[in-house]
Amino acid sequence: MSGSQRIAIVGGGVIGLSVAWRLARADQRVVVFDRTRAGGGAGRVAGGMVAPISEYGFEDDAFLELGADSLRQYPEHLLALSADSGIDIGFDGRGALAAAVHRDDVEAMRRVYDFRAHRGLPVEWLSGSEAREFEPLLSPRVTAGMWTADDCHIDTRKLLDALVAACRKRGVDIREDEPVTRVAVNGGRVLGVETAKGTEVTDSVVIAAGCRSADIAGIPESAIPPVRPVKGQILVLRGAPGCEFRHVIRAPEAYVVPKKDGRLLVGATQEEMGFDETPTAGPVMRLIEKAWEVLPSIYECPFESVEVGLRPGSRDHLPIIGPTAVSGLHFATGHFRHGILLSPVTAQAVCEGVTRGRYPASVKAFYPGRFSSAPARHGSEN
Amino acid sequence: MSGSQRIAIVGGGVIGLSVAWRLARADQRVVVFDRTRAGGGAGRVAGGMVAPISEYGFEDDAFLELGADSLRQYPEHLLALSADSGIDIGFDGRGALAAAVHRDDVEAMRRVYDFRAHRGLPVEWLSGSEAREFEPLLSPRVTAGMWTADDCHIDTRKLLDALVAACRKRGVDIREDEPVTRVAVNGGRVLGVETAKGTEVTDSVVIAAGCRSADIAGIPESAIPPVRPVKGQILVLRGAPGCEFRHVIRAPEAYVVPKKDGRLLVGATQEEMGFDETPTAGPVMRLIEKAWEVLPSIYECPFESVEVGLRPGSRDHLPIIGPTAVSGLHFATGHFRHGILLSPVTAQAVCEGVTRGRYPASVKAFYPGRFSSAPARHGSEN
Repeated sequence: MSGSQRIAIVGGGVIGLSVAWRLARADQRVVVFDRTRAGGGAGRVAGGMVAPISEYGFEDDAFLELGADSLRQYPEHLLALSADSGIDIGFDGRGALAAAVHRDDVEAMRRVYDFRAHRGLPVEWLSGSEAREFEPLLSPRVTAGMWTADDCHIDTRKLLDALVAACRKRGVDIREDEPVTRVAVNGGRVLGVETAKGTEVTDSVVIAAGCRSADIAGIPESAIPPVRPVKGQILVLRGAPGCEFRHVIRAPEAYVVPKKDGRLLVGATQEEMGFDETPTAGPVMRLIEKAWEVLPSIYECPFESVEVGLRPGSRDHLPIIGPTAVSGLHFATGHFRHGILLSPVTAQAVCEGVTRGRYPASVKAFYPGRFSSAPARHGSEN
Repeated sequence: MSGSQRIAIVGGGVIGLSVAWRLARADQRVVVFDRTRAGGGAGRVAGGMVAPISEYGFEDDAFLELGADSLRQYPEHLLALSADSGIDIGFDGRGALAAAVHRDDVEAMRRVYDFRAHRGLPVEWLSGSEAREFEPLLSPRVTAGMWTADDCHIDTRKLLDALVAACRKRGVDIREDEPVTRVAVNGGRVLGVETAKGTEVTDSVVIAAGCRSADIAGIPESAIPPVRPVKGQILVLRGAPGCEFRHVIRAPEAYVVPKKDGRLLVGATQEEMGFDETPTAGPVMRLIEKAWEVLPSIYECPFESVEVGLRPGSRDHLPIIGPTAVSGLHFATGHFRHGILLSPVTAQAVCEGVTRGRYPASVKAFYPGRFSSAPARHGSEN
């Protein structure tokens, strides 16, 4: 398929809007549906790390490559986004410092370090005192650190506001408070989407509905993406005198991200609680405790709020990007904790896939088809 | 002095409004000045305990007597208040359970128990299992408890809203956003108060400005009440399944008050931070931790907010009630953590003092004059 298509995007979060904006820049006619307000979703409640190396645990290399590719695209992505939106998003690239106090944590960090160093990644092992040279406010009890100079982070609220503005500038039709109730499919080909207001006939449909991507009717049972909500609670503190942290600090069970506007984000829990979005007392206590252990001056920081996001976790915690068995139906979901990082590369891949009918090789490992040998849901497929 | 006076009350918190309402019911012409909104102050951010026994540490007996007297007045006080305001405040009298896990805490609780039991107060010592019969959700690690059946608590927001409404009903002139800048005094006699809007000529002035009572100009240096702000942070959680607590629970460094509207109040810190009213991360962590230690199901409770109040702490942490060396100038301040409990008895005493020129004997121990042998402030008194 070539020329200008009419394309529906289901979901106006960081992935849906990035895809929509990219398609609109490629002269496609795009309509984005969001169940509430566009520019929300899990990406709005996020540390905003753009850090492929630090996000790289023991996954396969395709994941690392995808993240690195996305990071390479970020500067140009943000430049174009600022030009279209008039919003300067900023890009904070001062690096990230992992820090550990207890012996088990140091050993776990060492295994990660060895794995990354073996892959030739630019990570640096530090003694406690070396770590405190990078970040003087680190606790004297920190005994080891790992420095990753390439880690960046951004203000995700500005990113999302800019995406909304840039989409509008490029003529994307954004429909808010209009949930898609069904994907219309006939004879193995997508026909459009249905909402309470009627049917939107389109050439292609991109499902970018985050943790709700599995709950849209009309998708054939065997093609339903296996995503679930993974609850994340994050604290918004405010920097105080004595809390002028220079870098992102990663403690064993919490991270601290100092934003240029003075906010200190302390994240994040990973809880299997279904669609529950309630802040709760225990996780608030734990996040403060874990951050305070490596950064004692956190104790005096003004407490602003608790925010909750529902990340879309896939069955293997890797993103789901690509075509489906239904012609014209595409997925861009399951980004779990990596939606901000992976939004440029996802938008680029989906744009190519939808407009040229051919996805770049880099996303082949993340095709929806990888789950098709097993049923996507429990129960009968009849 | 007899007949109808014109009386200015400085401060529209729980003490100022209780005094104003009582005076208005005694046919006095009352004007209340508040620097912001009437019905605020430290009392609004409070557990709302009406618990003279539990609040009785090792102070002298006059304090216990004053609290017990106030508790005796409470039912009639609330009845009249409901009649005047149309607001049903409620009075939760299900008792309070102190609980301790660690040996040091048990021993400290035992000393308090022995002291109270020796005074003949109705307190009961409980084993851990006995305590869990009172409150089944108590942690299995709780090894001892102390039961105080007489403890009550109320919803302080309703109490304050009712006081505002009742004052208005009785013709009290409530001036909001109008801070008193000076008490006008001449020849050892009060003349009225000054605000940015002008001078209010009155027969009497009652200073009920809480932690700001020492900062009003015009009071002779030797009569300035020695009160300071004692910061209290309190958490508002919401009861969840498994958190249906029956009683007020007092842990060694936190208390949990289950309100009938479903809120769970977890309080409170005591911090010497001047007039700082910022919620901070460390105390939030500590309050949850201390409550969670005795009530583990707190962990899952929805987290609503952190509130901060500034209690008026006097030099000896006892209230300051009574006449001053300046004729017509009265104090009703320094109630520290006991403003809610002591509001009826304070209102009654000040009403008698102002209208009949004679305070009841029960407040003699709390007269402002007890501080006069020492200068109220550092520095010269010239």
